[in-house]
Amino acid sequence: MKKHNFYAGPSILPEFTIQKTAEAVINFAGTSLSVMEISHRSKEFIVVMDQAISLVKELLEVPEGYEVLFLQGGASTQFYMVPFNLLKTKAGYYDTGVWASKALKEAKFFGELITVASSKDKNYNYIPKNVSIPSDIDYLHITTNNTIFGTQIYKDVDAPVKLVADMSSDIFSRPIDISKYDLIYAGAQKNLAPAGVTLVIVRKDALGKSGRPIPTMINYMTHIRLHVLLFLRRFRHYYG
Amino acid sequence: MKKHNFYAGPSILPEFTIQKTAEAVINFAGTSLSVMEISHRSKEFIVVMDQAISLVKELLEVPEGYEVLFLQGGASTQFYMVPFNLLKTKAGYYDTGVWASKALKEAKFFGELITVASSKDKNYNYIPKNVSIPSDIDYLHITTNNTIFGTQIYKDVDAPVKLVADMSSDIFSRPIDISKYDLIYAGAQKNLAPAGVTLVIVRKDALGKSGRPIPTMINYMTHIRLHVLLFLRRFRHYYG
Repeated sequence: MKKHNFYAGPSILPEFTIQKTAEAVINFAGTSLSVMEISHRSKEFIVVMDQAISLVKELLEVPEGYEVLFLQGGASTQFYMVPFNLLKTKAGYYDTGVWASKALKEAKFFGELITVASSKDKNYNYIPKNVSIPSDIDYLHITTNNTIFGTQIYKDVDAPVKLVADMSSDIFSRPIDISKYDLIYAGAQKNLAPAGVTLVIVRKDALGKSGRPIPTMINYMTHIRLHVLLFLRRFRHYYG
Repeated sequence: MKKHNFYAGPSILPEFTIQKTAEAVINFAGTSLSVMEISHRSKEFIVVMDQAISLVKELLEVPEGYEVLFLQGGASTQFYMVPFNLLKTKAGYYDTGVWASKALKEAKFFGELITVASSKDKNYNYIPKNVSIPSDIDYLHITTNNTIFGTQIYKDVDAPVKLVADMSSDIFSRPIDISKYDLIYAGAQKNLAPAGVTLVIVRKDALGKSGRPIPTMINYMTHIRLHVLLFLRRFRHYYG
């Protein structure tokens, strides 16, 4: 009998997903091999990746010009990967909880940080209102759900600059106007999938402008190019 | 019927491992939950981690003062994580193939690089011999198995400094004198486990000396501390 699961995360998964995964561990997509033995470049696996990406685009109505990526390292890795790629001189951060505060701390390696709004004075028990947001910042970073303190930003913040958001525990809980964001990230284990993967939605035109050299694996462009390469390989298989 | 698998990687896995994994996807360690739904802080999962770490230490005879870590991001992430943590001013690299050359390229972000030995002149078809290794470098980086070119460094290189080695495709194929290394890393998918995890063995005293600020998730110390924290949690559970 299945137990009830009251973890804050990882979340419970549908029985269908669990059964299909167990099957794929034995025999993946009719290959007679385990999904653990198959190449990420095999056409069977690329189909899975493409379908997952298409589903994210459909459900969140992701507009043209944005890429959907599945990366490793958790939201905590995005805390430094975001400023490594997007922070030119100055960025604004909402300090509304433990995770917001960690994101802010990691960004300090890369430029000037403005704490645009903070609720630290009352142990993060509210979301600041009537915030004045400067227009000379590269982006405004928000954490939409502050799990430890129970506060949440329920709508896309109005700002004179693009937003970057950690939506780890409330993505897919409401419609999002993606066009207001340069980047959205979410550790999958709370609301989306098992632990181990991080969803990133990034506006391509926001990349390549930081002016700093970026190690290959931290550069979002690397992962975008890899996906295009794998997709073309699949396309060739089907049509050529 | 199981197919033969001629992939360069991921490697084939033992039938025992595949069956046990499929079972754990349904019901992990008697928890009546899927391993995909369980917390990495649960005692059942910590036991798995501890056993895996103990087994690596036993099989490779890892001496005191070294930590065994399981990280994400593949060997490619180690290409920049190694110099981020270990390169103070100058490091030496063997350029013996595609992966060696990529490791060298990523390290250039962090300091002066000396190509101590290279076989690029003959399209990487040999391992250089009688190499003169300077003693004023922070470490010497080698790639023990150059899969694309079929060359291999079969023994621990004699050097006046500590070694760092990418052993992605030949770790566990021979005894290693770990004490000659500051760090060994290996993407698991070739010789060890399914894709998605990277084994790192690091000498603790080599850390914390680069003099540069290191983002939290790139800092090996973060992952060492996390493991100690989780181990103590388990210890408390068993002993009071």
